[in-house]
Amino acid sequence: MKLLVINPNISDDVTALIESEARRSASPGTSLVVRTAGHGVEYIETRFESLIAAGAVAEIIAEHTAGGGGDADPIDGVVVAAFGDPGMPALKELADVPVIGITEAALCAAALQGHRFSIIAISDRIRPWYLDCVERFGLGGRLASIRSINETLNAIGSVQQDFKETLLALSRRAVAEDGADVVILAGAPLAGLARELQGQIPVPVVDGISAGIRMAEAVVGLQSGPHRAGAFAPPPVKARKGLSENLDAALTAAQTASNAAAPSPS
Amino acid sequence: MKLLVINPNISDDVTALIESEARRSASPGTSLVVRTAGHGVEYIETRFESLIAAGAVAEIIAEHTAGGGGDADPIDGVVVAAFGDPGMPALKELADVPVIGITEAALCAAALQGHRFSIIAISDRIRPWYLDCVERFGLGGRLASIRSINETLNAIGSVQQDFKETLLALSRRAVAEDGADVVILAGAPLAGLARELQGQIPVPVVDGISAGIRMAEAVVGLQSGPHRAGAFAPPPVKARKGLSENLDAALTAAQTASNAAAPSPS
Amino acid sequence: MKLLVINPNISDDVTALIESEARRSASPGTSLVVRTAGHGVEYIETRFESLIAAGAVAEIIAEHTAGGGGDADPIDGVVVAAFGDPGMPALKELADVPVIGITEAALCAAALQGHRFSIIAISDRIRPWYLDCVERFGLGGRLASIRSINETLNAIGSVQQDFKETLLALSRRAVAEDGADVVILAGAPLAGLARELQGQIPVPVVDGISAGIRMAEAVVGLQSGPHRAGAFAPPPVKARKGLSENLDAALTAAQTASNAAAPSPS
Amino acid sequence: MKLLVINPNISDDVTALIESEARRSASPGTSLVVRTAGHGVEYIETRFESLIAAGAVAEIIAEHTAGGGGDADPIDGVVVAAFGDPGMPALKELADVPVIGITEAALCAAALQGHRFSIIAISDRIRPWYLDCVERFGLGGRLASIRSINETLNAIGSVQQDFKETLLALSRRAVAEDGADVVILAGAPLAGLARELQGQIPVPVVDGISAGIRMAEAVVGLQSGPHRAGAFAPPPVKARKGLSENLDAALTAAQTASNAAAPSPS
Amino acid sequence: MKLLVINPNISDDVTALIESEARRSASPGTSLVVRTAGHGVEYIETRFESLIAAGAVAEIIAEHTAGGGGDADPIDGVVVAAFGDPGMPALKELADVPVIGITEAALCAAALQGHRFSIIAISDRIRPWYLDCVERFGLGGRLASIRSINETLNAIGSVQQDFKETLLALSRRAVAEDGADVVILAGAPLAGLARELQGQIPVPVVDGISAGIRMAEAVVGLQSGPHRAGAFAPPPVKARKGLSENLDAALTAAQTASNAAAPSPS
Amino acid sequence: MKLLVINPNISDDVTALIESEARRSASPGTSLVVRTAGHGVEYIETRFESLIAAGAVAEIIAEHTAGGGGDADPIDGVVVAAFGDPGMPALKELADVPVIGITEAALCAAALQGHRFSIIAISDRIRPWYLDCVERFGLGGRLASIRSINETLNAIGSVQQDFKETLLALSRRAVAEDGADVVILAGAPLAGLARELQGQIPVPVVDGISAGIRMAEAVVGLQSGPHRAGAFAPPPVKARKGLSENLDAALTAAQTASNAAAPSPS
Repeated sequence: MKLLVINPNISDDVTALIESEARRSASPGTSLVVRTAGHGVEYIETRFESLIAAGAVAEIIAEHTAGGGGDADPIDGVVVAAFGDPGMPALKELADVPVIGITEAALCAAALQGHRFSIIAISDRIRPWYLDCVERFGLGGRLASIRSINETLNAIGSVQQDFKETLLALSRRAVAEDGADVVILAGAPLAGLARELQGQIPVPVVDGISAGIRMAEAVVGLQSGPHRAGAFAPPPVKARKGLSENLDAALTAAQTASNAAAPSPS
Repeated sequence: MKLLVINPNISDDVTALIESEARRSASPGTSLVVRTAGHGVEYIETRFESLIAAGAVAEIIAEHTAGGGGDADPIDGVVVAAFGDPGMPALKELADVPVIGITEAALCAAALQGHRFSIIAISDRIRPWYLDCVERFGLGGRLASIRSINETLNAIGSVQQDFKETLLALSRRAVAEDGADVVILAGAPLAGLARELQGQIPVPVVDGISAGIRMAEAVVGLQSGPHRAGAFAPPPVKARKGLSENLDAALTAAQTASNAAAPSPS
Repeated sequence: MKLLVINPNISDDVTALIESEARRSASPGTSLVVRTAGHGVEYIETRFESLIAAGAVAEIIAEHTAGGGGDADPIDGVVVAAFGDPGMPALKELADVPVIGITEAALCAAALQGHRFSIIAISDRIRPWYLDCVERFGLGGRLASIRSINETLNAIGSVQQDFKETLLALSRRAVAEDGADVVILAGAPLAGLARELQGQIPVPVVDGISAGIRMAEAVVGLQSGPHRAGAFAPPPVKARKGLSENLDAALTAAQTASNAAAPSPS
Repeated sequence: MKLLVINPNISDDVTALIESEARRSASPGTSLVVRTAGHGVEYIETRFESLIAAGAVAEIIAEHTAGGGGDADPIDGVVVAAFGDPGMPALKELADVPVIGITEAALCAAALQGHRFSIIAISDRIRPWYLDCVERFGLGGRLASIRSINETLNAIGSVQQDFKETLLALSRRAVAEDGADVVILAGAPLAGLARELQGQIPVPVVDGISAGIRMAEAVVGLQSGPHRAGAFAPPPVKARKGLSENLDAALTAAQTASNAAAPSPS
Repeated sequence: MKLLVINPNISDDVTALIESEARRSASPGTSLVVRTAGHGVEYIETRFESLIAAGAVAEIIAEHTAGGGGDADPIDGVVVAAFGDPGMPALKELADVPVIGITEAALCAAALQGHRFSIIAISDRIRPWYLDCVERFGLGGRLASIRSINETLNAIGSVQQDFKETLLALSRRAVAEDGADVVILAGAPLAGLARELQGQIPVPVVDGISAGIRMAEAVVGLQSGPHRAGAFAPPPVKARKGLSENLDAALTAAQTASNAAAPSPS
Repeated sequence: MKLLVINPNISDDVTALIESEARRSASPGTSLVVRTAGHGVEYIETRFESLIAAGAVAEIIAEHTAGGGGDADPIDGVVVAAFGDPGMPALKELADVPVIGITEAALCAAALQGHRFSIIAISDRIRPWYLDCVERFGLGGRLASIRSINETLNAIGSVQQDFKETLLALSRRAVAEDGADVVILAGAPLAGLARELQGQIPVPVVDGISAGIRMAEAVVGLQSGPHRAGAFAPPPVKARKGLSENLDAALTAAQTASNAAAPSPS
């Protein structure tokens, strides 16, 4: 199984964190292609930054799927590796393989291990965007709290080192005061921290990147089949203008595959 | 990884269906222990039947966890293999390993592949129980429909053969009329049918048993850590009476492990 | 009118508290049969303990309904006297008479007297289970708060004496800080306390046991008729195995009564 | 126990129906004072008609409570006997005794007997108002359907005779097609019909008037105490102008009683 | 465009505040008729006071619409100028022109400028009523908080002067602590304050009166057409009794206009 | 007042429809700048197409706001003129003036005129995206239905002519069968149709473009002030890469303005 793992922001040091944790998490038979957004911001904190990132992620997905089924070694699934799931669920329309965000993966991993969960985040500004994401997925009723660092970050690549004690304290308060049954350490900059805090937080702790890899493996493994009808089938064929070459090719490939294979829905 | 897979109803032929599909779905490194409920009903359709089944499932979990950490070859996770998730989420308190129902697993598998999903069920009577289950998990807002066979079943072990055309038609109508992005073929009696209908339903089709196995593997693999505080820690130590020997031992083992290891929550 | 009142936990001193308050609350024409769970735990705080209790309650209901309509002095209704309503609503399928939990009764009594209500509980651990119960009943949007004692209990039978001042303070804070229009003193161990605190809490105070008795009398009095179709009709006839003699007989009796009397639903 | 039962519309023949069913439903020790709205419309179908009716009901409550505690034979509770509960929950502020609408009473009676319920109504126009009422009470998630007569009514007093077959058919379809576990025959014009249809509808059938009487008896019997703080305490003392003499006196009486008796909320 | 602006409480000094801000807010072509409730209370804080006010507002609307289309200079829309929207949405049935409450207008103005909003209110008692109002409109999920003055008011006309610093502090805390993207200064007594606090609160600040005027202008300008079917068409013709002359005439006029013009709904 | 009106899709004939209706709707003092997306698709039907469109809209907003306050004739507000509100609410972060989508505007216009509303749409595929949009705005509970044309469109510019009878029939069925109090004719391709159908649909009919213009005028007129804190303040300053020159300049301008002016939030 070959997974394309995309860092939706432009920070190479965060990509390195993502890659390390992704490789630690992946099953023996899984190979990973890890990519960094070609344009965007250092790290995503707002709805608008997420919108910009979504466009960058679409380009990378398109680049890897534009060839349709003709590729010698095609990808089997995509992991969008920023908490907040930029571009989701829209990006699921773009590829014939599962495209999974680390937030939705972490929410599922948490929901399968407890009832209420808390999210620990790297900045106050990031919280409304995360809250949107949880509510849109439908699990807002199970969110115990979102707690966040409210200090200025020195560097995005060292957040987990710089604020380890703060993050641990926030996690414990989420359990003791907010009623969290599970804690999610959110955001690619925290990738791998859950392993380090193992045993210091009295409930299961979910790492977004690990959850993304494991859930993508699970879903790809199910081979549930592609979308040939409904809201996640490829967009209908129509006039387009000004899209990148890859995006244009990816849409054409998706539409072609879909039209060739679609059974009658009735 | 070793998973305990429990059929909460008493039908051996359904256990056989579960076991076949579970083995097809499991990853190479996963071994399975498959068990049938010691008491209960032929197949579960109602809230009360589910309550009875929950007790039977608890006994089997207890039998496998009563020894605590002393077992030479302990289980790493439990799959409760009846749609409707009898005893969930209560049963998660009973073991230090993930205990996952096939409904919650299928809901996650569906939610990661689309936005709205439909459930195809084997009888009309079963629908209110399934609806409860989806609502309690929190994803009621994403449920497109529950469609069901409204004919008398001949035998629970042959439902998928006897009603294949009906089930296919219900699935297609869920897509065309109800707006399902994903279809879940619900219930252990339908285990394996999704593979057979592959390509005949124009959206991803999720099999409950496969989803249960794959999601359990994913969650076990995350090694998120046990519940030592919060609502899913083992029940507090207190006077008990009249429980089975296994259940009594399992509770004691869980409480002992929890008290030994619990970090201070603050 | 004859009501069967069941204490779902094994503590005789709690049964005594239940019985006292139940007798004070009952209308002149109401006779009570009070029973204690045959197996289970000292007092229920968790979802799993509630699941165990549900099985014990089912046995007692079955014992009293197994004879079907042939009993010389049959019961007219059942009150399940533990807050959190173990086994509800599943247990409503088991008897042809109303089976009512004290939580659902207290929620109705509160909802008819104000808009938002708070629940005062005996332990922190108990809160997630109570919250589930309120949400499943559908009135989560009217819950102002659940406040609880966060100290170790000496003995379950003396909680209301030992913590009277704490419970009063929690009740007043629920009104002043959480916006409760009505306060529910939850849990059988608090049975009767509401009478004692009368006039010291500035909003209506609901006792679970009293509410259970009064609401059961009201519903039994309505003579709304039995379930012969829908989700609360007796479970369909099918193979069963390993149930207790009483449970087996009760199911058979219910199914027989139902099949004899059912009008055509269309 | 003395209950004031108010028909919020001006039709004496509906008052007669209400009174008959109320007397049949009341417990031995309950006496009833039945009153008809002094102004308003023949029967209430819309939100605006309900608003007008609320004012008329307030006048009658005020007339009976204006004397405060000095009355030789004061009322112990009020039943507002129009489905849709005109003036609720506002009217609860006006009296120191429970004021209960027949809709909220019927919803509780239904919710205690099943999970989902349907409402059978006398006209299509009435449905949005009823739906508002269910949603405001908080049980919208348990509403299976509202089904209604869509023919012109000859006379409001004979609706239940004129449309008995239609109402029976609507009830059965609610069970068979909408998944109702309980059916509510809504509206004072249908008072008493549930008794007549007994045995012809395969689930419990709730009559609004009976439910109102029985639930009021239950709540009055609980003696939960008055509102001296919170949203249902009497309105604060302030300048008033142009209210009827009774309403003015009732507000003054309520405020006086409240200020005299209120314990400190903290 | 001619708008009828109604102060639902009896305080002339609040009417003056309303009129000043309304005139400052109105577009050049808008003329205003400002009226004070003929009966009611000094200022509305409770559900019951709101019910009384609704009746008074209905009388004023009726007075201005009783003539039907025959008036030489008819009004084009109505603004109900008390936060909490007394009588809404029922009053929309009474007139063939848009009838808009300042709460619903402010909620729309806030929702179009951010995602979550807070309401700043003049008293603690007022909060449950406001919360009802937000929930009934459907935007409860976007409410960040309702914060309120918890001191005794000297005079309703000088609240904004007397408590300016308090109101400013509450607004800032709503932003900093509750996550408000927009702040609504609620209640006619605060009319105009938003202009004064401009620049001192770091998010958009919405004044209820301004929002009411501007939103009414917008909706009137859309000329969307009247209600001739559905839940907001005039109430059906039927026997009435005891209504004021204006109300009676207004209902007759509305019914006549509706019956004359209604197209067939199918 | 100067409004920037953006057609998020690339069809000039739809831009012409938008411009015509926008000019008809605008108040005398309002000037309009109408622009067409520089890249994208012919018309937006899916979540992914909406994501692409959002990027194109961002570019146009950026182009008009990049100069910050230095522009001689700056815009006062932005209307995003595609139903489904591509990029909302993220785009509100990008400009210091109100940015309003025609869906949110139409939802407000509908919600102020009735309780439940239906949306009439141009294709079946478009419905899930619209439903998302309504749910995210928070008014999903008031949506009566989304009805849509399920035939192939000849040309996007002539949809309203080609399917006028269909659209009229769908609207009437929404009223008669779904309980719509207001009908929204959705989508820029239907701009202006509401005027033509005036009087043929028995409830108020809202045109998205008109609502967008009128609501933008109302909100701009309120001068509620900019976002200097909270989730809609400009994104924090941080490293960026690969954005267009305009977008880069617009973000810098917004951040500069925000940092200069922000009052302390506490």
